Amino acid sequence: MYFGYHEVGNMNRAIIRYFTFRIIQLEAVLLLVPCLVALIYQEPQGWYYLGTSIACGIVGTLGSMRKVENDSFYAKESFVVVALCWIVISAIGAVPFTLSGEIPNYLDALFENVSGFTTTGASILTDVEALSHTALFMRSFIHWVGGMGVLVLMLAILPRSSGNNMYLMRAESPGPSVGKLVPQIRKTAGLLYKIYIVITVFEIGALIWSKMPVFDAVTISVATTGTGGFAILNSSIGAYTIAQQNIITVFMFVSGVNFSFYYFLLFRKVKNAAVMEEVRWYLGIFVGSVVLICANAYHSFDGMRECVHHVAFTVSSILTSTGFATVDYTKWPEFSQTLLVFLMLIGACAGSTGGGMKVSRWVLMFKAVRNEISYLIHPRRVRQVRMDGHVVPKETMKSLYSYVLVYFFIFAGSVIVIAIDNYGFDTNFSAVAACLNNIGPGIGEVGPSGNYSGFSNVSKIVLMLDMLAGRLELFPLLMLIAPTTWRR
Amino acid sequence: MYFGYHEVGNMNRAIIRYFTFRIIQLEAVLLLVPCLVALIYQEPQGWYYLGTSIACGIVGTLGSMRKVENDSFYAKESFVVVALCWIVISAIGAVPFTLSGEIPNYLDALFENVSGFTTTGASILTDVEALSHTALFMRSFIHWVGGMGVLVLMLAILPRSSGNNMYLMRAESPGPSVGKLVPQIRKTAGLLYKIYIVITVFEIGALIWSKMPVFDAVTISVATTGTGGFAILNSSIGAYTIAQQNIITVFMFVSGVNFSFYYFLLFRKVKNAAVMEEVRWYLGIFVGSVVLICANAYHSFDGMRECVHHVAFTVSSILTSTGFATVDYTKWPEFSQTLLVFLMLIGACAGSTGGGMKVSRWVLMFKAVRNEISYLIHPRRVRQVRMDGHVVPKETMKSLYSYVLVYFFIFAGSVIVIAIDNYGFDTNFSAVAACLNNIGPGIGEVGPSGNYSGFSNVSKIVLMLDMLAGRLELFPLLMLIAPTTWRR
Repeated sequence: MYFGYHEVGNMNRAIIRYFTFRIIQLEAVLLLVPCLVALIYQEPQGWYYLGTSIACGIVGTLGSMRKVENDSFYAKESFVVVALCWIVISAIGAVPFTLSGEIPNYLDALFENVSGFTTTGASILTDVEALSHTALFMRSFIHWVGGMGVLVLMLAILPRSSGNNMYLMRAESPGPSVGKLVPQIRKTAGLLYKIYIVITVFEIGALIWSKMPVFDAVTISVATTGTGGFAILNSSIGAYTIAQQNIITVFMFVSGVNFSFYYFLLFRKVKNAAVMEEVRWYLGIFVGSVVLICANAYHSFDGMRECVHHVAFTVSSILTSTGFATVDYTKWPEFSQTLLVFLMLIGACAGSTGGGMKVSRWVLMFKAVRNEISYLIHPRRVRQVRMDGHVVPKETMKSLYSYVLVYFFIFAGSVIVIAIDNYGFDTNFSAVAACLNNIGPGIGEVGPSGNYSGFSNVSKIVLMLDMLAGRLELFPLLMLIAPTTWRR
Repeated sequence: MYFGYHEVGNMNRAIIRYFTFRIIQLEAVLLLVPCLVALIYQEPQGWYYLGTSIACGIVGTLGSMRKVENDSFYAKESFVVVALCWIVISAIGAVPFTLSGEIPNYLDALFENVSGFTTTGASILTDVEALSHTALFMRSFIHWVGGMGVLVLMLAILPRSSGNNMYLMRAESPGPSVGKLVPQIRKTAGLLYKIYIVITVFEIGALIWSKMPVFDAVTISVATTGTGGFAILNSSIGAYTIAQQNIITVFMFVSGVNFSFYYFLLFRKVKNAAVMEEVRWYLGIFVGSVVLICANAYHSFDGMRECVHHVAFTVSSILTSTGFATVDYTKWPEFSQTLLVFLMLIGACAGSTGGGMKVSRWVLMFKAVRNEISYLIHPRRVRQVRMDGHVVPKETMKSLYSYVLVYFFIFAGSVIVIAIDNYGFDTNFSAVAACLNNIGPGIGEVGPSGNYSGFSNVSKIVLMLDMLAGRLELFPLLMLIAPTTWRR
């Protein structure tokens, strides 16, 4: 992310404190939604959610009442705010799970919540069907909240307008560069949420129409559109009908598209939508992967029809970083599994709810490499990298390179540290790939039939940091812990 | 590699042809060395080497007699020359192996030769002890030739001086940037070879002094200083004494140091040698890795002394991209194995005979990332990347980024393609890591006790291309096959 030139000064700690308390306030509101579910199903676990909500409400309101004298903030404050808020919201979200005894170990509950908010969907639970409706709903609901971003949500409903809110949105939103759809940041945030709600409602409708129980339809839909991956059955999506699975395939894919695309379509800017290279590449990668995997894993199925059905579901699930499963793809041949692991690294479109490095980053990298080779051969023909017809600013490219380097440093470091638990290389590599790219399941021990419960506490913490780093695009977390950030 | 601004025009095909025939001529000379070994051991296989040598001599001399009218050449011709010459020299080197029937399948013989010249040391042989002395010597000798570079060798002995030879040397020499030690390119090439010969002779002397048979001492020494890794026993280096193994540990490490370091020491420019950050990082990575692996794999050994001995050997072997083994490290815990796999990616120093991405590239990347984070926090404090006290040119950094991107594209593509053979992810990932970084053994099926014979022909070709791409630092091969290179 490139933020351009901006003012420098001491860190504005007051504004960081302010936003943190506002997020706690927001969480008080969010926690009321599972209470509603508890009310419907008459589940006593709801009291713990209500209690946490009330506590958050009091703390958040009192804390954010203190007047902030200087309300100007810039990139560095935004990074710190984003990192801090995501940690706080997950840490609080884990409390009712532990208090209700459904996930007695707080670290496990935290893992589940970080995994939920970051839309990863990696679980430490061996039996999700034992959970109450309240807890199941909460797990899926936080996918939905995290998918579009908690700060974007706050900006959409915040009765306070500062010109600098763009920094916050940029720090939280995925992709190499973030544009405003409309001039006002609050309106942009609101528009994104409206599109998001419409897609979610459509999926709920389609699933109910396909005769899925309402509770299942709602939880699966919010987990789909948030590209999360927590399911409410141990078999993930395997127990539903072919038609229902196909509906989910489509909505996973739809949720991985850059939301600007829908905005353009909605406001009849068809031309703008048509030039979006990222969306075309995204579609191309999806189709190409389905064809290759079908050709390779054909013998694992009874006939081509079943093969295409499950492969399309799986590719849609992995590419969009959702992580749902209909079958255990770790039983497919190695080529298919390897392709899936590298699909994890690609990820969905920037500006979608999906994770991963994002299709647009890969397209930019591919173009940069092509230019470099062309430059070596024809040194006078220096070509700039273009995207959607526009020249990509040098600074965006520079940030992209830093992103890639940081990505691989974090990736390698994480694989090495979790290897201490002595699982195989395939498990460790894919666990980090699945967490850093917010997918959920990997291959080996953490395949769709496995889970993350076997990892040590140290590994769980590393994987949680990976999920946060992946969702927040690496830099916010690094800046939160960099000593120079806090030096006066 | 950055070549600065230079002339553009049509590809000078005549000069490419000229250099290719000169390399064939050079190979005629090289092939006489194993003939000498055949003479000593009275082995009939020698006739095939002699025959190939004579044929090369005739073809090379006739071909290079044709006058080259325009002897100016630039970066693009150099890239193509380097790529072509390495393919030709390996393709011819495989001929006597196949003719003599020692490696009857030509593709296997080619694999062995590409592996040899690129100093990889990955073998398709299941029983090296069945080979003649001639073939064993040839395998190790080509490590030595490839270690410093076949074109550098040609430049050192070529009776022809063109100011543009620097392009050739740059295209073949490893590392992010190449400097001339002395103003004349031929003198630089000669100096490098003198240092190389001295180190090799020292090792032969030390091994003979330790009572190793002369044949073993010579073959192991040329394979060590070339950072190759082909051994003459099925147990690699495991059967030798502790003292002999320690000598090899030291010389592997020494061969992985930037040769400029020795040049500076030799010419009493101690200050220049002392500021070489890369050498310090290289030493730090070595010591750090030994400590970490010893702490993790302690229980795999009888006591700390044995542990440190074998771990130091293994780390030295992997980090320098040699690939010798004293023990089977695939029996160590996963953490140690994972660390070794990532050490493969680091590689030795630039300007050494070692492979991999090179320590200096990692140092530059690390500094670039640190700068970017610092820039995000303090936007006015733009810091340039410095190395050895000098500012690193922007163009070098840009080339570095392209290198890294191309590296990962090739890496991922190769892992996906060879996965068709249905080996595990650890085998495929480490096989590509070991070939692309010119190490030799990986983990899983291609560990020190395994070999590459089980791969299909397609995978063998992919791995051969990886070895060449790794040794020639990616771009020459890409330019050889890029259509725009050949467009008039």
